[in-house]
Amino acid sequence: MLEKLREEVCIANRELGTSGLVKLTWGNVSGIDRSSGIMVIKPSGVPYEDLIPENMVLVDMEGNIHDDKLGLRPSSDTPTHIELYKAFGNIGGITHTHSLYAVKFAQARKDIPCLGTTHADHFYGSIPVTRLMHDDEIDNDYEKNTGKVIVDAFDGINPDDMPAVLVANHGPFTWGKDAMASVVNSIVLEEVSSMALETILLNPNVSPIKQILLDKHYLRKHGVDAYYGQER
Amino acid sequence: MLEKLREEVCIANRELGTSGLVKLTWGNVSGIDRSSGIMVIKPSGVPYEDLIPENMVLVDMEGNIHDDKLGLRPSSDTPTHIELYKAFGNIGGITHTHSLYAVKFAQARKDIPCLGTTHADHFYGSIPVTRLMHDDEIDNDYEKNTGKVIVDAFDGINPDDMPAVLVANHGPFTWGKDAMASVVNSIVLEEVSSMALETILLNPNVSPIKQILLDKHYLRKHGVDAYYGQER
Amino acid sequence: MLEKLREEVCIANRELGTSGLVKLTWGNVSGIDRSSGIMVIKPSGVPYEDLIPENMVLVDMEGNIHDDKLGLRPSSDTPTHIELYKAFGNIGGITHTHSLYAVKFAQARKDIPCLGTTHADHFYGSIPVTRLMHDDEIDNDYEKNTGKVIVDAFDGINPDDMPAVLVANHGPFTWGKDAMASVVNSIVLEEVSSMALETILLNPNVSPIKQILLDKHYLRKHGVDAYYGQER
Amino acid sequence: MLEKLREEVCIANRELGTSGLVKLTWGNVSGIDRSSGIMVIKPSGVPYEDLIPENMVLVDMEGNIHDDKLGLRPSSDTPTHIELYKAFGNIGGITHTHSLYAVKFAQARKDIPCLGTTHADHFYGSIPVTRLMHDDEIDNDYEKNTGKVIVDAFDGINPDDMPAVLVANHGPFTWGKDAMASVVNSIVLEEVSSMALETILLNPNVSPIKQILLDKHYLRKHGVDAYYGQER
Repeated sequence: MLEKLREEVCIANRELGTSGLVKLTWGNVSGIDRSSGIMVIKPSGVPYEDLIPENMVLVDMEGNIHDDKLGLRPSSDTPTHIELYKAFGNIGGITHTHSLYAVKFAQARKDIPCLGTTHADHFYGSIPVTRLMHDDEIDNDYEKNTGKVIVDAFDGINPDDMPAVLVANHGPFTWGKDAMASVVNSIVLEEVSSMALETILLNPNVSPIKQILLDKHYLRKHGVDAYYGQER
Repeated sequence: MLEKLREEVCIANRELGTSGLVKLTWGNVSGIDRSSGIMVIKPSGVPYEDLIPENMVLVDMEGNIHDDKLGLRPSSDTPTHIELYKAFGNIGGITHTHSLYAVKFAQARKDIPCLGTTHADHFYGSIPVTRLMHDDEIDNDYEKNTGKVIVDAFDGINPDDMPAVLVANHGPFTWGKDAMASVVNSIVLEEVSSMALETILLNPNVSPIKQILLDKHYLRKHGVDAYYGQER
Repeated sequence: MLEKLREEVCIANRELGTSGLVKLTWGNVSGIDRSSGIMVIKPSGVPYEDLIPENMVLVDMEGNIHDDKLGLRPSSDTPTHIELYKAFGNIGGITHTHSLYAVKFAQARKDIPCLGTTHADHFYGSIPVTRLMHDDEIDNDYEKNTGKVIVDAFDGINPDDMPAVLVANHGPFTWGKDAMASVVNSIVLEEVSSMALETILLNPNVSPIKQILLDKHYLRKHGVDAYYGQER
Repeated sequence: MLEKLREEVCIANRELGTSGLVKLTWGNVSGIDRSSGIMVIKPSGVPYEDLIPENMVLVDMEGNIHDDKLGLRPSSDTPTHIELYKAFGNIGGITHTHSLYAVKFAQARKDIPCLGTTHADHFYGSIPVTRLMHDDEIDNDYEKNTGKVIVDAFDGINPDDMPAVLVANHGPFTWGKDAMASVVNSIVLEEVSSMALETILLNPNVSPIKQILLDKHYLRKHGVDAYYGQER
């Protein structure tokens, strides 16, 4: 099981590396095996083209390195991933990037309003930006607290229907049923962010789409009566 | 005839896949055989690089699957294509995308004014955005009603001279004499949208070009005395 | 001589085709042999990858086809090129494109002010936009009159020091000592246009650079004491 | 030692050529051997793909050509590089580009405020823009004086913690421990500039991040207790 997960997470990280969303090594993907509580994540600072299943890093939910063969450090964002896996029980993969347009909203500290059906097809409402972190949250356990402010932002929001967040002054995290699904959500988020930003510049008074249209599109793809794509 | 159409529509969809206009599977092309009333369209959710003439889906003007071999579902936008073929009797192909700049105008709910000759060479006037759909139009037969609000927007506009529309809060549809012509119009629309958006940011008071210049450019390429390109 | 010119103009057109400045067939390059008064130009509507020296079209300064072997029509912009060759006696090549950022300024009907040294290295002052054309100028000999309004815009400007213009509501023409030099100027113009547009959005009150800095940069590369590049 | 430096500087210039940051030959990289005081720099006006270690140019700190084999001129920006090596004693490499977004801030004559953690990971505070140069600074020893106004801008700023500057109305210079590190900083600067520009358009009232967050991110990567990447 963990060998398969190493492979999936490696493939998802390599996909991220060729997606156009990341410069240098500014992004990481993880996946989790819920039965053992072990997470597999990108090693810190290693170029995407050098990734192989063997250099993925295994970490348990206390942040301890598991099954250490190569002695590589996990991504420095590992404690953030752990908090998300703990709080959001249904998710199987997480991606973090500094993709340009999502970062612009994160830096502007603005939610991304749902302005069209591309957004509504994937995210069920406004994509939230987190509150600013308090000084003590930055000083101690910063990466863990980054996870905690994300979880705070989901008070009243179902993370299964909103697989993305913008960390204020930082950038996006996305998630999904597995590592690759979280990468796809990062790709979609970047498109949606780009569409929204210049829609707002073109029409500063634009308003979000109607709830009934949001329901129609989101549920067409994700509800129990979904009718998009081929039958499984 | 239908075999040739399968091939043309397949090629046009693959062209769309490499055009830079679509992410993931967010776009589809169809073509119609007017003599039999059969439309050929992309299967839903299938990656562009996997498309072959055999997996194109045939649908009649009542939306029934015709000549079903592989059991694939047609694009979920099929009912929209049908409405357009019914209302616009001269068109032979339709393309739908979520291309970035066209979507920005669709989300801003603004027509694209004719600000220059690139636009005038291809679209005879402002490219219209549809009205918002009513709740009942969203609730029932949504994709069919999407076609109907497009047709409503062409009250007083000749679709043969305006082969593009922006569905409000959604994105563009384009058409042409055949499937490939509709893809080309999607490419042109995206360029024109990009040009227009930042022209407006640079000069918010910009006005459309004069009617005589619009006539000159559009008719130079499309009128009975067209003199662009080589003789046919 | 004309065989060599055919080849140069063909290469320059193919370079334009791969430059990223043109979509479809929206651009053309010509070159002139001043001794014979014969101009070589792209055939109308032919894809860049199909261009070979043999299908370039030769035209004299009265617009007559010279040495017609293949019977191809020249670019529909041919009369504009002719007017420029007649008025600007030192230039040897001309390029016309609909490149995105240059078009945005042309559509906004704004000169491109000299905001930095990238601009000053290549264009000696503001890049002018033409006046609007009168109705009768559009109605009759439109392409020839397009050349004439360009020439009007250079009243008081030396075209040798300002190898670019924006035709209002249309797009840019650039020129140079030969066909390839005019293509390079189109590439530079597009960069400079992009830099200028978002500089203005970021700082609407920005002012042009000082004359002394403009002189320094332009003359460093183009004056009699130029010291950029390797000695010839 | 100098042979190794020739090779490093050549590789760094070629990397710059494929980075997407430069058009034509608008950029150059140098490196210095501190023991001999010899700098290696790109030859002026030579395309990146033609660069080999042998055509790199060696220059001493008085601007004299050292070990002249091929007789090539060094980049016209050489005197600027020299001033920076003299004033900033710890740096080993310098890159100059006209990359689009950094130039937009330089032309707008605005510092790039630290709006997010991407910025804070690499630059310890606002990235400064230089003052305008006086007429006599432009008239005489212009390139040398370009270096001097950069040094002026670092009054009170540690160049080891701020490896980038915007020369007003011109463009960026970046530096680092060696030639390649300076290229990487140019890549990062361009990303950060793009993020900042449209953040400001989206939210004109945006404020810089808190000092404690800047400290956290910059020192996480660059302080004595850095914990990013793998152990060396």
